Parts: sequence; structure tokens; C-alpha cells
Amino acid sequence: MASVTSSATNFLTRKVRGFFTKKTLNARLPITQWLPKYNLEMLEGDVLAGFTVGLTVIPQGIAYALVAGLDPNYGLYSSFMGCFVYTLLGSCKDITIGPTAIMAIMTHEYSGAGGPDFAVLLSFLSGLIILASGTCNLGFLITFISKPVICGFTSAAAITIASSQLKGLFGLSYEAEGFIETCELLIENIAGTRWQDITLGICCIVSLLAMRKLKDLKAVKPNASDPTGKKVLKKLVFLSSVGRNAIVVIVAAIVAFAVPENTFKLTDTVQPGLPSIEPPPFSTVVNNETYSFGDMMASVGSGVFIIPLISILESIAIASAFSGGKTIDASQEMIALGFCNIVGSFVQSMPVTGSFSRTAVNATSGVRSPAGGIVTGLLVVLALAFLTPYLQYIPQATLSAVIICAVIFMVEYEMVLPIWRTRKLDQLPLWGSFLTCLFWKLEYGIVVGVGINLALLLYGIARPKVEVTAVTRQDGDEPAYVLVEPRSGLFFPSIDHIRAVVSKAGRGTANGNMAVVIDCKHFVGVDFTAAKGIKNLCTDYEKRQQDLIFINVTPGVEQGLRAVSDKLNIVTSQLELYSSLKSASTKNLESKGI
Amino acid sequence: MASVTSSATNFLTRKVRGFFTKKTLNARLPITQWLPKYNLEMLEGDVLAGFTVGLTVIPQGIAYALVAGLDPNYGLYSSFMGCFVYTLLGSCKDITIGPTAIMAIMTHEYSGAGGPDFAVLLSFLSGLIILASGTCNLGFLITFISKPVICGFTSAAAITIASSQLKGLFGLSYEAEGFIETCELLIENIAGTRWQDITLGICCIVSLLAMRKLKDLKAVKPNASDPTGKKVLKKLVFLSSVGRNAIVVIVAAIVAFAVPENTFKLTDTVQPGLPSIEPPPFSTVVNNETYSFGDMMASVGSGVFIIPLISILESIAIASAFSGGKTIDASQEMIALGFCNIVGSFVQSMPVTGSFSRTAVNATSGVRSPAGGIVTGLLVVLALAFLTPYLQYIPQATLSAVIICAVIFMVEYEMVLPIWRTRKLDQLPLWGSFLTCLFWKLEYGIVVGVGINLALLLYGIARPKVEVTAVTRQDGDEPAYVLVEPRSGLFFPSIDHIRAVVSKAGRGTANGNMAVVIDCKHFVGVDFTAAKGIKNLCTDYEKRQQDLIFINVTPGVEQGLRAVSDKLNIVTSQLELYSSLKSASTKNLESKGI
Repeated sequence: MASVTSSATNFLTRKVRGFFTKKTLNARLPITQWLPKYNLEMLEGDVLAGFTVGLTVIPQGIAYALVAGLDPNYGLYSSFMGCFVYTLLGSCKDITIGPTAIMAIMTHEYSGAGGPDFAVLLSFLSGLIILASGTCNLGFLITFISKPVICGFTSAAAITIASSQLKGLFGLSYEAEGFIETCELLIENIAGTRWQDITLGICCIVSLLAMRKLKDLKAVKPNASDPTGKKVLKKLVFLSSVGRNAIVVIVAAIVAFAVPENTFKLTDTVQPGLPSIEPPPFSTVVNNETYSFGDMMASVGSGVFIIPLISILESIAIASAFSGGKTIDASQEMIALGFCNIVGSFVQSMPVTGSFSRTAVNATSGVRSPAGGIVTGLLVVLALAFLTPYLQYIPQATLSAVIICAVIFMVEYEMVLPIWRTRKLDQLPLWGSFLTCLFWKLEYGIVVGVGINLALLLYGIARPKVEVTAVTRQDGDEPAYVLVEPRSGLFFPSIDHIRAVVSKAGRGTANGNMAVVIDCKHFVGVDFTAAKGIKNLCTDYEKRQQDLIFINVTPGVEQGLRAVSDKLNIVTSQLELYSSLKSASTKNLESKGI
Repeated sequence: MASVTSSATNFLTRKVRGFFTKKTLNARLPITQWLPKYNLEMLEGDVLAGFTVGLTVIPQGIAYALVAGLDPNYGLYSSFMGCFVYTLLGSCKDITIGPTAIMAIMTHEYSGAGGPDFAVLLSFLSGLIILASGTCNLGFLITFISKPVICGFTSAAAITIASSQLKGLFGLSYEAEGFIETCELLIENIAGTRWQDITLGICCIVSLLAMRKLKDLKAVKPNASDPTGKKVLKKLVFLSSVGRNAIVVIVAAIVAFAVPENTFKLTDTVQPGLPSIEPPPFSTVVNNETYSFGDMMASVGSGVFIIPLISILESIAIASAFSGGKTIDASQEMIALGFCNIVGSFVQSMPVTGSFSRTAVNATSGVRSPAGGIVTGLLVVLALAFLTPYLQYIPQATLSAVIICAVIFMVEYEMVLPIWRTRKLDQLPLWGSFLTCLFWKLEYGIVVGVGINLALLLYGIARPKVEVTAVTRQDGDEPAYVLVEPRSGLFFPSIDHIRAVVSKAGRGTANGNMAVVIDCKHFVGVDFTAAKGIKNLCTDYEKRQQDLIFINVTPGVEQGLRAVSDKLNIVTSQLELYSSLKSASTKNLESKGI
């Protein structure tokens, strides 16, 4: 027992020491990589980008809190801690962590029993699961979600979110889930459209789209030869373009404040002040009913696994999109995301993840390091402390316009053609995940897409290409033989197919006993089932008195094959092959009495 | 509409015509292959083997009917139709279809609501599903069940079945499910052991094991120089060895008939006469309660999918074991098995599949074609018609002894070592499936084993071996470069890994800008995700102003890669590689102003 404890202690000591080696420290605390190189120029970029993202996240956070079925202030509570934590642990400079539309929908779905306490608990538990997955290096699992699946998922999510915001734009009130129900209820309720809201909403959308284009205009591009005044003007135009969400919201709020009450549907009151710092709730009371931890777990159900999964998926997908040429350390991203959710749950945050739209804003605003998150976080904290009385004047139609304009460009219709050109079969996971996401449920879409992808992959493994060539007599006296070249590894699902092809290749020879040579250069390993299959193949050929020769066998494969069959004819060179073939043909002729 | 109908008719006509081409006919009606070559010598072997199998299946069938919770006569009803149908459609001469221990356990589990009607309906529905799977060529799915998984499953099934028979051997009465519960109840009830039964049981086991050894004795081996009398004697000894089950049962029944009543626990009365030929029951009455088809379906539940799965698995596993060198046409075996179950359900058969023990008896008795099944089937029909009054004298302990002696040799402990020597990782699916089967449920064991196997396979695909070699300057003036050779295909799960290795290989070079050459000879195809990854890799290298050259690219892969990235540097020969490397190094020197 003592030795068990001591070896466990040793193991832990090694793990802890291992963590503090420089390499691990750099990988696990990416801030140690960029902070020593930090300079004033980077600071400028980070402050500008961080401020812009802050102006975007305030209205978005409020909107997403409503999507999640929570009070608006919870959106702001969720918007700052993730930024701070990611600065320390994040490895991708552009990513900004906070509330997102998809996470809000998920939170609404799984904290259905009601109340922010469920959302906060979900954030804490999701964080734990994401952190554990990252610590166990499960990041490599993310490689099984292919680009077409991500593309289908993102596009369907964008359409679902945009459609869900139409009710705010039209000034309607109904509760719908999913794309289909949203469309049905929209058509049912369309007669109740409020002209004030739709007018404001359309004005906001037009302004947002126009200002989005602004920064791409040639006239606005900075030019070294510009006089200072023109430079400042250009910078202002650029700023108003990247900060368009904030500007539209502020202007709309001023208009709403000026016009008579009830002209527009407004945001619910934002409770003033910063959230208290306290542990996440492990029991709660909703409608005079007490929920124990067990009751809460039963209520959130499978959400406790699906929310972390979607959270990881969304964040990693964004990290991949903005990585430039760099390979993502998915496990480190998961550790960072896990801590964002865990620490966030102490300031009443709902589950958070990387935001596609704000990450894009961050990148185009010239962020240089994850430190931009500090500025964003501080701005949200300031808003909570001093601006809450004014936040309630934000019209719902404006928030809907902001969200629609942010997500609609996530529909990746332009990917269909390149995917078709690269590999036609990849359309199956693309459309499989897109249609399932859109017409069934977002999370099922990923499962369906990954399922189709794996089925295609496994079918390819089970039925590898096997090239069969008849090698005829050269001008010298080399004997003729049949060359069989399986174009893939030797694994249990493919051995039956390879065996069938090799058997057929042997039977198909002119005189029925030409030697068959298997080129094993594509075999990287062998499992027991495959080794058994090769053994049976050898026995089969022995019965037929036909030669079966293996060439280009790596030592590992040879060892595996020899473990089950001792009568393998393996040659190591073309020369040895020829001499083996010759002696075989002489033997054959002798046995026939020639 | 008319054109739709006509094109559908055309399609059907083509399908039907396609079926009657010689090749398809041979594959789908294997009897057309062996019947034209049939001769007297084959007939002799088939009659002897068929008779021996018949003598074995009669007591086994009665025993398995009891395992399935049915009256003994249903075991015999299940034992003849499969033999007849398989003769027509089966492609493996040794296999004998009928009731088996595993199918009996499954039938008992899923026809739990009671009554043979459920078992017969399960046989019909299972047959339909097996037939449909075979017709859709789903046979290839069987390749995903590796040898170690089959080995773990078979061994655990053998132990489970043997342990379940101990109660008959000890003369006890209890109802247990699974290995654990059986052991618990056996220990609990052991005090009630009946000495008459255990004595008879042990005598039977000793006799069976001794007679099993008999045929392997040197003195019994046939010798051409033997006088006729000795030949006949040897043949008789051989026959008594292969027919030992029947002999033991007949002798025990005579003993039971001779001794006073109630000395031994006997078999329930076997209802005399042949089963009536009628469609399977789509509604039934059990204990005065009427079950509609829907009620029956609800009662059998997932059994309607699991029984076909296990049935296919067991039959194909046996076919693989006895195929010799031949590759199994799994789809054809499924079609045959499907018809066996469907036609069987018209004579009140429970679900049937290939029997491991009887197939072994068939093979060692020298069967020459599937026609042996006709003899077996006829013998069972004769037994039903004339021998039923005597079948009730078969003691339960004897039946238990027969089953224990048949299955105990299916524990494949001798496979552990070769699997270890071939590939140590293959122990995981072996023990995963074995332990799950033994301590949880037989059917879950297969799922767990296949899951472990696929996880190992996919991990291998996601993390392929990538060899990195620094190719230094030859004696000529070829420039030095880094050769990267991924040892596996280019699929979406592996692209991140390959990209990381290639990036690292480039950064690791001495002067930081040595060209990197990717040898693509193992790439058989490319999907969109992988093509995107390669594109990002190229962009990455372009940024670093380092050369990235692809060699040995197949046309298919090149087309896929070019669909997403236009700046690929692909060379087609070693010569072109050198000239490309030289021009690149000149360009580099120029750009550095040298």
C-alpha cells in the first residue's frame, strides 16, 4: 500500500515537474511566449481592436442573453471573464471568448427548467469537462470533424440564428425552436408586424451593411503620402466601419430615448452593477420549488455533454479559420476554454466559447496578441458599472439587425464548388450535416456529418485500391509474374478484399501457375486478423502449388506476419526476386517431369 | 408517369436478367456450381457426415429448445428446414444451419413475454432482415469485426453456455441469466445437488471426452494394407467417435427407461409428429391475453435487430474458420441464412444460424458438399415422425454433458499468444470483447470489441507515421533538402498531424530555409479537408520564403490538390526535383544579394 502511495506521489511529482519545463510552460501558458516580446506597437493594435470588440460584445451579449432566455445583464456577465482568462491561456491572438448565438440557443434548450442558476451551473460543469478533455489531450479527436462538416454546421447555424432574429426585426412575440418552427410561426404572426420596429430594423441593417463596405473602399485605404488630417479622417472612417455595431446601437438607443415611450420594443431593464463573485449554484429555487444538485443535473440532462462538445467545436473551428498557416494546439485551446467557463461561472456567466463574428472584428481591427481581450473585458466591466441605466433604451429591432448582419456572412455557400472540384464524395458530409442541422437539430447535424465522413473513410479502408499488373518477360531471362500492389495499409477490414484480389490475380494467369508477387511497400503495420488472412492466402497458394512472393516488406510488418505463419516467401530485392522466381519455375518444370 | 413506370420496369427486367447470367447464378445459387460435378464418392461422404450430424443435432436441438424456454419439440422443428435450404443456397460445404446455444439464449432473452409464437415470429423477421442485408451487399460490414473480437466473443459465449448447463448436470432448478448470476445461483443451490444426476452427468462427460480422443488414436487411422475386417472395425470405432453425442444420448435414454421413474431428471415430453406448415404467427394469445402484431413487436423489442446481427456474426465466423483458403462471400451466406430463417418460420422454427460444434462434426466426418444437409434434415424429420415417444427418456444431465463437451473446446485460450506476438495492441479488442461478453452481455461485447478496434484503427489514421530525412549534398552538385515521407494516405483526420510534422521539419533545418520535399507516394486520394490543409501548408511556406516541393503525386491526388490551391510546386521526377531545387537556391542567394 505504502509503495502504491509513494509511486503515485512520484508520478504526480514527475507530472508537476514536467509541467514546469520550459517547453511545457510555453505550450500550456502561451502568454509566456508573447509577453516577453510585447512592445508599444502591439499595445496600440491590441487597444484599438479590444475597444472595438468591446463595443460589439455589449449589444451582442445582451441579445444573446435574451436568446438564452435570461435577463440581459447575464449577457454582460458572460462577456468579460472569458476575455481575461483567454489572454493568459489562449494560443490564438484573434479569438475572443464570450456569449455566442449557438451557445445561447444551447443554453436555452438545456437550462429549460428555468433560471440563470441552471445556465451558470452548465457553464461550470461544461468548463470542467472541456478542461478535463484538454488535459487528457483529447484535442486530436477534433481532427475527425472535417471541413465540409464544419462548413455545413456553420452555414446551417447562421441561417437558424438569422431566422430566429426575424421576430425582433418585425416586432413580433412568439417562442419557436429550430428553423422550421420559426418559419411557421413567423408566417402565422406576420400580420402583427409593427411598422416602427421593421422600419428601424431595416434602417439598421442598411446602415450596418453600408458601414461594413466602407473600410474596403479604395479611398479609405491608408496611404503614407496622406497629410495628417486626411490620415486621421481615414482612420475615423475605418474605426466607424469596424465599430459599426456599437455605433448603430448607440444611435438607435438615443433615438429610442428621444421618441415617445412604446414607439419601439426595447430591451428589458439591465440590472445595474457588477456581478457578485461567488461559487456556481449547486442548488436553486425556481417558482418556489427547490432543486437539489441531482434535480438540476436531471434537468440539464445531456446538455452537460453536448454544450462542451459544441463549445469546443465552435471555438476550434474558429481557431482553425483564423490560424493563418499555424497548426492549432486543440488540447491547449480546450484547456483555455475550460478555464474561461469555470472562472466565468464564479461571476454568473452562462456557457461561453469563441465568437465567430467578434473574432473576425478582432482580426480586421488589427489585434496583435491575446492582450486585446483585457481591453474588451475592461470595457464590459465599465459598462456594467456605469452604463446600465442607458442600456435598456436599446431597441430589440436594432439588436436583431446587429445579429443578422453578423451571422449572415457565415453562410459558406462559396465552399460548395471547391469541395465538388476536390472530391465529389465530400458533398455527402457537407449536405448531410447542413440539412440535418437546419431541419432537425444543430448538434445532430455534427453527429450525422461525422458519421457519414467516418463511413466513407472506413469504406475506403475496407476496399483499398489494389493494382494488378502482369509483368511479362523482359528482354533478359527474367521470368514473368503477376505483380499485386495494394495501395493502402494492411488492416483487418481490408484483408478479405486484398485476399480476394490476390486469389483472383493468381487464378487469372495464363498457364494457371505463374508466380504472384505482392508489393508490400504501402503496408505500414499489420494486425492479427490481417496476419491470419495472409497466412490463409499462403496456405491457399501452397495448395494450388503456385508461388506467392512478398517484396518491400518493412521489418515491423515481417515480424507481425511471421508470428502466425512460418512459410512466408519474403524477398528483399529485385535481384533476389528474380532468383526466387527462376528456382520456382525450374522446380515447377521438374515436378511436371519436363 | 408512364415513363417512370417503364423505366422502373426496365430496371427490374435488367435486374432479373442480370440474375440469370451464369456468373450471378453461380454466386447466388451455389448448388449450380457443385451439383453438375456430383458423384458417388461425394455421396458417400455426404451421407455419412449428414447422418452423424443428424444424430448430434437431435439431442442438441432438444437441449437448445429448453435453453430458449420452449418445448423440446421446437428444437427439432428448428433442425431440419435450415439444412434443406442451405443445401440450395449455401456456399460453404461444412456449415450446418440449425438451433445453437447462443441463438437459444438470445431467443429466450427476446421472446421473454413467452410462448413459441414469439420465437417463430423472431425467426421470420430475423430472416427478412438478414436476407435484406445480404441482398444489399452489406456483407462487407462483417470485415469490421476482427479475429480478436470474434475470438473474445466465442470464448466468452462458450464459458457462458457451459456454466448455464451446470444446473442440468447437478440436477438443480433455477433461472439465471448471464455468467455472474449463473455462478451465484449455482453456489446458492449447490446443496440441492442430486447424486443420481451428477453421477450420470460425469459418466457422460468422461465417455464423451474419451470417445472424442478415440478417432485421433494412431491405431484407429485407416491403413490401405489392413484386412477388410480390421478396416470395418476401424471405421466403426471412427463412427462411434464422431457419433459420440448420439451414442451417449441413446445409451443414457435406455438406462433411464430401465431404472425406476424419477431416478434422473428427464426431458419434457416431446410432442409427437411433424410440425404443420403454416405462416408465422402475426398475433398470438399468451395466458388468455391477446397480443397484436404491434404488441409482439414491442415485446421482442431490439431483439429484431440483435438476433439477425448475432446470427450473421456466428454463421460468418464459422464460415471463415472452415473456409480453408477460400474467401467468404459474406453477402451470399447472409442470403442463405435469411432464407433458412424465413422458410424455417413456416414450420415453427426458432431463429437458427450456423452451429460451430456440428459444423466441426460435419467437417471431421468428411462431408463433401452442402448435400450432407439433406441427410441431416431427413433424419430429424424421421425422428419427429417416429421417435418422439422415446425422446422423453433422455436425461437432462446427459444433454448438459453433451452441450458442455461441445462448447468447452470453443474457448480459444491458445489464440492469446499468437495475437500478442503479431500485434500487442490487438489484446485490447480481444479482452475488451471477452470481458464485456462474460460479465455484461454477449451482444454488448461485440459492440465494445468493434468500438475498440475502430478507435485503434482511426487513431492510426489520424496519427500516421511520417518519416523525416535530411538529404545531404551528394558527391555531385545536387542541393541538400529535407525529405518528408508520410507513410499513410492523405485523409482529413491525418492532415493536421502531417502539416505539423512538415512545418517542424522546415523549421528544424540548419539554415532555416532548406527546401522541404514531400514524397506523396503513399497518398491514394485526397479529400477537401486535406487539400485545404495542404494549401495552408503552402501558404505557410510561402510566408517563410521556404521551398515546398511535392514529388510522386498521382494524377487523382494532383487534381484534388489543384482544385483548392494553384501555387503547388509538383515535380514528376528526381531530375526535375534537382533542377527545381537548384533554381530555388539561386533565387534565394539572389534575394539575399549574394
